[in-house]
Amino acid sequence: MSSLILHEYAASGNCYKIRLTAAHLGIPLERREYDIMKGETRSEAFLGGVSANGRIPVLQVGDDYLPESNAACLYLADGSGLIPHDRFDRADMFRWMFWEQYSHEPNVATLRLWRHVIGEAGLDDLRRAQIPAKQAAGEAALELMDDHLSRSPFFVGDRLTLADITLYPYTHVADDGGFELGRYPAIGAWLARVEAEPHHIAMKA
Amino acid sequence: MSSLILHEYAASGNCYKIRLTAAHLGIPLERREYDIMKGETRSEAFLGGVSANGRIPVLQVGDDYLPESNAACLYLADGSGLIPHDRFDRADMFRWMFWEQYSHEPNVATLRLWRHVIGEAGLDDLRRAQIPAKQAAGEAALELMDDHLSRSPFFVGDRLTLADITLYPYTHVADDGGFELGRYPAIGAWLARVEAEPHHIAMKA
Repeated sequence: MSSLILHEYAASGNCYKIRLTAAHLGIPLERREYDIMKGETRSEAFLGGVSANGRIPVLQVGDDYLPESNAACLYLADGSGLIPHDRFDRADMFRWMFWEQYSHEPNVATLRLWRHVIGEAGLDDLRRAQIPAKQAAGEAALELMDDHLSRSPFFVGDRLTLADITLYPYTHVADDGGFELGRYPAIGAWLARVEAEPHHIAMKA
Repeated sequence: MSSLILHEYAASGNCYKIRLTAAHLGIPLERREYDIMKGETRSEAFLGGVSANGRIPVLQVGDDYLPESNAACLYLADGSGLIPHDRFDRADMFRWMFWEQYSHEPNVATLRLWRHVIGEAGLDDLRRAQIPAKQAAGEAALELMDDHLSRSPFFVGDRLTLADITLYPYTHVADDGGFELGRYPAIGAWLARVEAEPHHIAMKA
């Protein structure tokens, strides 16, 4: 494999996903840190080189750049046991990964950013007005996860896949965004199962 | 392959993606239509059987249900020429598919729904207040596509992949949402290339 550099902001769950995938696979990553709160991904050098839309994480593979956290996880895990061999199960893993980006991250992660990282006092009126809808959508996402996990130990079948690895980062810190993980016992048991896996690493590792 | 049933709302670009993928692969799909505007996906039978969160499309594979449009496309195209063989190119296709769901659909498709399907007069104040931000984010998404397509005939390399098939549906009707496709010449040329592919079908086919 070409040399791998993760362009990241360590407090971001989307960046943590990639480190967690690499840890499970024993793949070394060089890390380059940017402080998104100080605009370090808006510099000319970053926009012209690493990522045209100023978003992180970006996984650099040799001279090529790969944006989108879940795509980076799929690149690293390609051909590994973190991706199911069965065709339907593999598609079902993709289903949870797309759901994570569409229905979970914009609510559960965004409220954590707004309330915990920026703080409500720093939000403009439009963002503040969206909080109740994002709270409700985030709770619906957590309920759907809890319901599924009450019937299955992991998201797809009985072992860890990228569906678990990509859903873990923002879920395990959902309380920071104003959610109450204590209301979702099956999620709590799943978080413990993910954390008990042999190569698990913490967000701040 | 098990029997395939697409649970859908035909005017939805997310449903069209799946039909378009199937058309390119010559895979027959049985279609079951629901009118989301009349709440037909909120019935007990639908929520208890097809999809717990009342969203479509859902691809039924035998007795199993697969939500998330892009996951359904990946199930159908598994092992086909619509998915690149090269590891980086394959990840780059995933990158555009995740980007489509995170940065394109919530802006370009949502404004089409709000302005063209529901109509602005039918929107609540919170939605109406979000229109300028979604307009700006949708224009940024179209600019990023146009820039990329000015340097590449398709999203990944020189041939059609699922990245093109999943980005085509909402892009080709972006004008319905208040965007001006005429401002993006490289997108226009790409739309024509996608439409010229041998097995292309129109949204209302």
